[in-house]
Amino acid sequence: MMFGKTTKFLVAATVIAGLTTAALAKEKVYKWKLATTWGPTLSPFIDAPKNMAKMVEEMSNGRLLIRVDASNKHKAAFGILDMVKGGQYDMGHSASYYWKGKDINTLPFTTMPFGMTAPEQYAWFYYGGGLDLMQKVYKKHKVLSFPGGNTGNQMGGWFRKEIKSLDDLKGLKMRIPGFAGEIMNKLGMTVTNIPSGELYTSLERGTIDALEWVGPGMDIKMGFHKVAPYYYTGWHEPGTELQFLVNQRKFNKLPDDLKAILVTAIRVSAYDMYAQNYAMSANAWAKMGKDYPNIKVKTFPKEVMDAMKRTNKELLVEKTKGQPLLKEILDSQSAFQKKAREWTKMSDYLYLKDNLE
Amino acid sequence: MMFGKTTKFLVAATVIAGLTTAALAKEKVYKWKLATTWGPTLSPFIDAPKNMAKMVEEMSNGRLLIRVDASNKHKAAFGILDMVKGGQYDMGHSASYYWKGKDINTLPFTTMPFGMTAPEQYAWFYYGGGLDLMQKVYKKHKVLSFPGGNTGNQMGGWFRKEIKSLDDLKGLKMRIPGFAGEIMNKLGMTVTNIPSGELYTSLERGTIDALEWVGPGMDIKMGFHKVAPYYYTGWHEPGTELQFLVNQRKFNKLPDDLKAILVTAIRVSAYDMYAQNYAMSANAWAKMGKDYPNIKVKTFPKEVMDAMKRTNKELLVEKTKGQPLLKEILDSQSAFQKKAREWTKMSDYLYLKDNLE
Repeated sequence: MMFGKTTKFLVAATVIAGLTTAALAKEKVYKWKLATTWGPTLSPFIDAPKNMAKMVEEMSNGRLLIRVDASNKHKAAFGILDMVKGGQYDMGHSASYYWKGKDINTLPFTTMPFGMTAPEQYAWFYYGGGLDLMQKVYKKHKVLSFPGGNTGNQMGGWFRKEIKSLDDLKGLKMRIPGFAGEIMNKLGMTVTNIPSGELYTSLERGTIDALEWVGPGMDIKMGFHKVAPYYYTGWHEPGTELQFLVNQRKFNKLPDDLKAILVTAIRVSAYDMYAQNYAMSANAWAKMGKDYPNIKVKTFPKEVMDAMKRTNKELLVEKTKGQPLLKEILDSQSAFQKKAREWTKMSDYLYLKDNLE
Repeated sequence: MMFGKTTKFLVAATVIAGLTTAALAKEKVYKWKLATTWGPTLSPFIDAPKNMAKMVEEMSNGRLLIRVDASNKHKAAFGILDMVKGGQYDMGHSASYYWKGKDINTLPFTTMPFGMTAPEQYAWFYYGGGLDLMQKVYKKHKVLSFPGGNTGNQMGGWFRKEIKSLDDLKGLKMRIPGFAGEIMNKLGMTVTNIPSGELYTSLERGTIDALEWVGPGMDIKMGFHKVAPYYYTGWHEPGTELQFLVNQRKFNKLPDDLKAILVTAIRVSAYDMYAQNYAMSANAWAKMGKDYPNIKVKTFPKEVMDAMKRTNKELLVEKTKGQPLLKEILDSQSAFQKKAREWTKMSDYLYLKDNLE
């Protein structure tokens, strides 16, 4: 082995003008900080940046060290873009749609209601122009943005009471971010966003009447079913992708090999989170019925689903008015989705239909 | 920038016993060779090892260089395991089920008929014990094996004539590898495996009557539709994963940082191939109907599909007799699939069913 992982010093034989000598070469070590939206134990979200940092440390032989700060450290769960932009943090890990209020163009890169599934969306990001569009949007913030881990298809959320009609939604207060929140708002709900650590208390105390979080792998541990046992299937976040953010100026200062190491570690830890959450969801779902028989799995009635679809279409027209870049992103997504869905239908869908057991 | 990509020399400030001096440290460069089963332009299969090699070169700053040899170079498309085992090549890129005749335990790591889809299977490999089982199998060959890129759900293949009944299969000669080949053999077909470069000619000349290859993204360019226009939907390879192989002895000689770089580049290039082929399939499928109206997309009749399912179950019992390791692998896959499929059904399947357009 040339050099061990425990030392930051490189032992190498040097040859200068014919003179051979052993030199102890001290290499520059970059110490970075990353801020996440997530609590310190919120698996698998917190695992994506932690795995990324570990891979970077190993691949760079300790030349790039990234400290991952959970939200309890920096107390600004939804301030990740601002902190990376301002340079208080070199990197961030969060969900792009959390700052739709600051820059509406960042919204579609997380997920869109009735949008692409995770495999369709990864194809769009990496082989359908999606990543270029995301960099274009974040360029004005002097930040680089990369896919940061997919949750897969999310569940539609936890409700205290069964939703039997459109009227049952009206007046309810729900935690639901992104474009889905806009739809629910239009359908008469009061929508809000709340950091993960405060979700259970908010639901228990009645600050909110309903919430959507992720899926069985993450939700059940949160205990939502104790106060809101109606668990609805998904429509609104078919392939939620988190995002890694990197301060552009800091990135530019890295040598080329560390740039390549960082970008590669980001990419693989994102894909890995999709696999990790798939396994977590499968395991949790398999146990759910037995462990928590009070949970009632439901699908929104046709009247509600139709209204969501109709409202989605109306809002897409409304929100893109005078927003050429937003329109460009959404058009790119829907054109790709149309092609990809035809293929999904002939491949995975048809196969699953015939092999549901 | 600390050091450029064009030089293999590391310029660093050294501190020895208080003495500061600039030293030119020459680092060891590892030059490796990788053999693939694929032709030099067979995208995306050949792209996976090429992308991997490029990432490794960039991340290692040129300290690990991997030359990718296509099958026209080494003339042993199906001899990859032997060449990596024997040390003629340091690495390989192929499909594990191609050497089921040498070691039956290597078969299930590519795909199984009526088995897992790509997202289910990645969850199994990385978070369900699959990768450990694969390393266990390859250990006796002194080779490391890693997932090497997924094709997604494959099409069932190209047939000269429509298959209207089980009788229509009997006596036909088909190129179909893996466990699916065993099933087709039991159903009265003569099955064979043929390297990609010879597929079209074999079909055109009547050496074979039918073949399955991959899916629209790869198949249409091959021209199979010109001689066999019946294109069947899939059942037999729901999530075909290729494999990277690494000679264990050579791997052990790498310093820890290069080991981490290699393993990470392998992992990300595999995931990437899945996204790449999804995009290629979506694009090709969208154009297929217009460009090649003579292609007739079909699904195998229920009688045929039922026979395939029944035969699959019988063969699984038959082939695992006296094969405890094979049984362990297949049991692990089917237990994981059972859980994962329940979740897939509630998430992607239910969502797609309601959003087919």
